[in-house]
Amino acid sequence: MPSRQQIIAQIKKKKSFLCVGLDSDIEKIPAHLLEYADPVYEFNRQIVDATRDLCIAYKPNAAFYESRGVAGLQSLVKTWQYLPKETLNIIDAKRGDLGNTSDMYAKAFFDEASSGMSFDAITVAPYMGHDSVISYLKYEGKWVILLGLTSNESSKDFQFLPIGDNYLFEEVIKKANTWAGDDRMMYVVGATKGASFIDIRNHAPNHFLLVPGIGAQGGSLAEVCEYGMNKDCGLIVNASRSIIFASSGKDFAEAARAEALSIQQEMELELEKAGVI
Amino acid sequence: MPSRQQIIAQIKKKKSFLCVGLDSDIEKIPAHLLEYADPVYEFNRQIVDATRDLCIAYKPNAAFYESRGVAGLQSLVKTWQYLPKETLNIIDAKRGDLGNTSDMYAKAFFDEASSGMSFDAITVAPYMGHDSVISYLKYEGKWVILLGLTSNESSKDFQFLPIGDNYLFEEVIKKANTWAGDDRMMYVVGATKGASFIDIRNHAPNHFLLVPGIGAQGGSLAEVCEYGMNKDCGLIVNASRSIIFASSGKDFAEAARAEALSIQQEMELELEKAGVI
Repeated sequence: MPSRQQIIAQIKKKKSFLCVGLDSDIEKIPAHLLEYADPVYEFNRQIVDATRDLCIAYKPNAAFYESRGVAGLQSLVKTWQYLPKETLNIIDAKRGDLGNTSDMYAKAFFDEASSGMSFDAITVAPYMGHDSVISYLKYEGKWVILLGLTSNESSKDFQFLPIGDNYLFEEVIKKANTWAGDDRMMYVVGATKGASFIDIRNHAPNHFLLVPGIGAQGGSLAEVCEYGMNKDCGLIVNASRSIIFASSGKDFAEAARAEALSIQQEMELELEKAGVI
Repeated sequence: MPSRQQIIAQIKKKKSFLCVGLDSDIEKIPAHLLEYADPVYEFNRQIVDATRDLCIAYKPNAAFYESRGVAGLQSLVKTWQYLPKETLNIIDAKRGDLGNTSDMYAKAFFDEASSGMSFDAITVAPYMGHDSVISYLKYEGKWVILLGLTSNESSKDFQFLPIGDNYLFEEVIKKANTWAGDDRMMYVVGATKGASFIDIRNHAPNHFLLVPGIGAQGGSLAEVCEYGMNKDCGLIVNASRSIIFASSGKDFAEAARAEALSIQQEMELELEKAGVI
């Protein structure tokens, strides 16, 4: 359960702010893994072994496990058990519900005694407001990563609606800043949003931002760093498909490592350029 | 998978627009059920048997199952298998994610071959826009129930933000109306919102609204009907805790039936008053 300081220390040590997204679609993993009792777990295990020195976070995407029902959830539990202790282990679940229901989602992802899993952080949707978020903050040291500005095309439907002088995503960040500090809360900001990082940093200069959207979704790491990096780095940039499905053959783990290494090297240059390391 | 017409027919036949919410917290179910191999499933089975002629829908709340990990998901799968074919079986999951991820959530809740479950409808969060919603609409005949105005206190944080002459929740409904018609989409509107139903009906005169918040949350059925009912009824009103936890003893199913019957009788009067039956 890395604290803010531990996350920063890890970034400096590994010269990386990479998060590897475990969107481990059973229909896309290499065919030879299907011989294993739990192919998705075996896939994740080898991906983790191949990348753990190059990344500071892992982010299983809950949907890819839930899609397979009970078997999928078993893969997720085993994957959580295998994740390194030093990395920030994020469940990308985008939950958001009434307080009494959010308490249950918090148990699902933060309470090992209840569900078999205890991730360090969860992504949460803001639409239902404060009481849909605080359930997760009751767990000491755990992180909430609230959706700010998402990487998808349809983010424009609502997130860019004008509220006075701001957009809705700015209002979300302004209000959420009053719920917890930068030691417990992060924001999701899509890498495809370029200069919008300037608006985000106006409201959240010190927060860590979880940034999906480089790789398969086409966002630019250089642009994210130009507009989004702060003195502590302040960025955790996720890549999923471009790393984990870099090869569909028996060399998938080596190929994943090569792709992760390439991103880490670009990140190292950005960290040097910004004076973080 | 009831169509709009089949839902209306069922309302007229049962003289009810009640949805029984299966927020089946294992810590609140009667103690004697803990002797069963799957106590939560046994609880749900008896609740369904006691209420199926009085309600037109069931709504398991995913969080209460996910909180117990693999065992909880097994209870949910067995519960789905037991739900009546004629009722609208809603999974209250409030998902919302990128298109490729929403495709996976759709598999989780709509594709029996993949997950073991195929609910008729799912609740969805709007923040990420169109591409987070359409995945579910690809399944012929299935329903999306989009969050409009939720029943919780914190709904004011964002849902009442002013966008021009409207509130955000109105913008959500106006835009979502362009994504699907009233034969595939419903909106969640909390029973605690009273006269706001007038604003909702301005934008969605014909849609069915899923209305949580009577019972434990304190909303008034009479007020919901006054402001929200249309010529086809247009309301599916949910009660969870007040029904399923009406008694904590061995008579829980009879007590649940008595509570459901009391609500059904009030609903029958409202349907008569509005000329629906």
